[in-house]
Amino acid sequence: VGEEAAIARIAAHIGRRSRLGDDGAWLTEPLPRGLVATVDSQIEDVHFRRSALSPGRLARRLVAVNASDLAASASVPRFGLLALAAPADFPVEAFSCAVVDALGEVGAELVGGDLARSDKVVATLTLLGEPVRSGPLLGRNQARSGDRLWIRGTPGLAALGCELMRRGGRWLEGRDPELPTGVPATLEELARSCLRTFFEPTPQLALGRELGGLARVAAIDCSDGLAKDLHRLAAASGVGIVVDEASIELPAPARELAHQLGLDPLEAVVGGGEDYLLLVATDQDLVGLGMRACGAVEAETGVRLRRANGAVATLPAAGWDHLGG
Amino acid sequence: VGEEAAIARIAAHIGRRSRLGDDGAWLTEPLPRGLVATVDSQIEDVHFRRSALSPGRLARRLVAVNASDLAASASVPRFGLLALAAPADFPVEAFSCAVVDALGEVGAELVGGDLARSDKVVATLTLLGEPVRSGPLLGRNQARSGDRLWIRGTPGLAALGCELMRRGGRWLEGRDPELPTGVPATLEELARSCLRTFFEPTPQLALGRELGGLARVAAIDCSDGLAKDLHRLAAASGVGIVVDEASIELPAPARELAHQLGLDPLEAVVGGGEDYLLLVATDQDLVGLGMRACGAVEAETGVRLRRANGAVATLPAAGWDHLGG
Repeated sequence: VGEEAAIARIAAHIGRRSRLGDDGAWLTEPLPRGLVATVDSQIEDVHFRRSALSPGRLARRLVAVNASDLAASASVPRFGLLALAAPADFPVEAFSCAVVDALGEVGAELVGGDLARSDKVVATLTLLGEPVRSGPLLGRNQARSGDRLWIRGTPGLAALGCELMRRGGRWLEGRDPELPTGVPATLEELARSCLRTFFEPTPQLALGRELGGLARVAAIDCSDGLAKDLHRLAAASGVGIVVDEASIELPAPARELAHQLGLDPLEAVVGGGEDYLLLVATDQDLVGLGMRACGAVEAETGVRLRRANGAVATLPAAGWDHLGG
Repeated sequence: VGEEAAIARIAAHIGRRSRLGDDGAWLTEPLPRGLVATVDSQIEDVHFRRSALSPGRLARRLVAVNASDLAASASVPRFGLLALAAPADFPVEAFSCAVVDALGEVGAELVGGDLARSDKVVATLTLLGEPVRSGPLLGRNQARSGDRLWIRGTPGLAALGCELMRRGGRWLEGRDPELPTGVPATLEELARSCLRTFFEPTPQLALGRELGGLARVAAIDCSDGLAKDLHRLAAASGVGIVVDEASIELPAPARELAHQLGLDPLEAVVGGGEDYLLLVATDQDLVGLGMRACGAVEAETGVRLRRANGAVATLPAAGWDHLGG
């Protein structure tokens, strides 16, 4: 199967509108508010194991983690470029067509790419989106002392899913997630849900677009661990953040699953990463957007955790460091 | 060295204008003619050997191969996004700063990226450029029967450079290219030039911008071998192409170097690839742009080679297949 034939079949899957084929992809539609651009990779044995994730699901994960960056930028996904390096036994066409489909589901089009051979799968997606507003007012540097901190969803479930994968959990095409041995029957459904959350996070695109309508809001997508991303938000804005443990701690069954997996429940929340939930700081009330207040922005720099008993402790910038190994 | 610190130092190298740091890069300048987007990777042991190419030169090569795609799209480089996966001993910061510098030399800015660990270096650059005209009229599908085929520069030298690298040639920072043993003294200067051409091709950006001013022109950057790229141009336009051997053959000293390296000189030209020269078909005279006619576009499909004695032979689509191994 040569490159030309593969590209022709991927173009056929895109349909008549396909722009694949030229040296550069011509994106000549009017873009009155410019673009927001992001790039993210999924690398075999770093982000996933091939035995644990089918190519189609990997494609969906790749699109989701990129789309999450656009959610944090109040942008609508428009154009994707896929650079794929993979071994000879990797189904390049099926994977690429799944990327086309996953892009389509968030409203975007595959417009270009690059194919190469390598020992391990390295899939890199560049995603270009159209911002719903014209200024970069949804950046990390927009938090102000007096703001409240907001979140929607449950940070930490992805960390449990990641540990389940490490122990042999997997999610193949056309099946339910499969658990490793040793998960108690009462926690099986929750554990499958954690695997789904880890393998295929849901980018909060609609929420990001709504946030784009606010006068001032700071946002970051929580991908590398709540603590680390809070530190980024605080540092970029030159403020401090106090997060309330009660509003971010895992529900009781998830705490039980964490213990079963040998994880500290709070550590899973603040250090786990891969949740792809938006963390937001603003002086607006966001209950109407389904968000809940989970902390406060203060003038005193640093990131702190307010425990259930009222004690406040420094929260170090743990979490995932992409260069840490 | 953590990720945050690395990004901060890369941002400092970019300077006060740096847009690094948010989840998505805000490219909100007016882009009245839209954008052209391209992506290309350089992969260790596929495109280069780390022992043969310093990180700084790899950075320049990565930018050059992407910029060449924009040259073929009559576009001015504007924004780059770098996804870099590399082992712990790879100098991520120095490499990234070299990408910033190389982008700056073609007028572009590093606006975003992604860092990760991997066993081998996989460097992927997405390059966004502004087209000098508003329609995709510089595509591969614009060749018409009766056009002449044009080229500037000497295809095949990069193939000699690639073979010299395979035999131990290398180009480290702050040095001249180093040759493998066995190159005759009279051919040493030429051989060093071939290594330079292979390792650091010069994208024909100014030529591409000039071509963008013509009424109709087909263009492709000759990266995967002249024969293969001629087939792509012919197929996309639904025409045939006859290329004249006399106008593309290597000069005598390069033919001699090819023989010394055990390569067929004609095969180096038509099958070698990595030259990054623009191949152009148009009914205009392009001598004024420094190009020379090297063939003709015909109604009869297929790609043919007119030998020096006037005989015409089918030219198969040999050359580099990215999925071929």
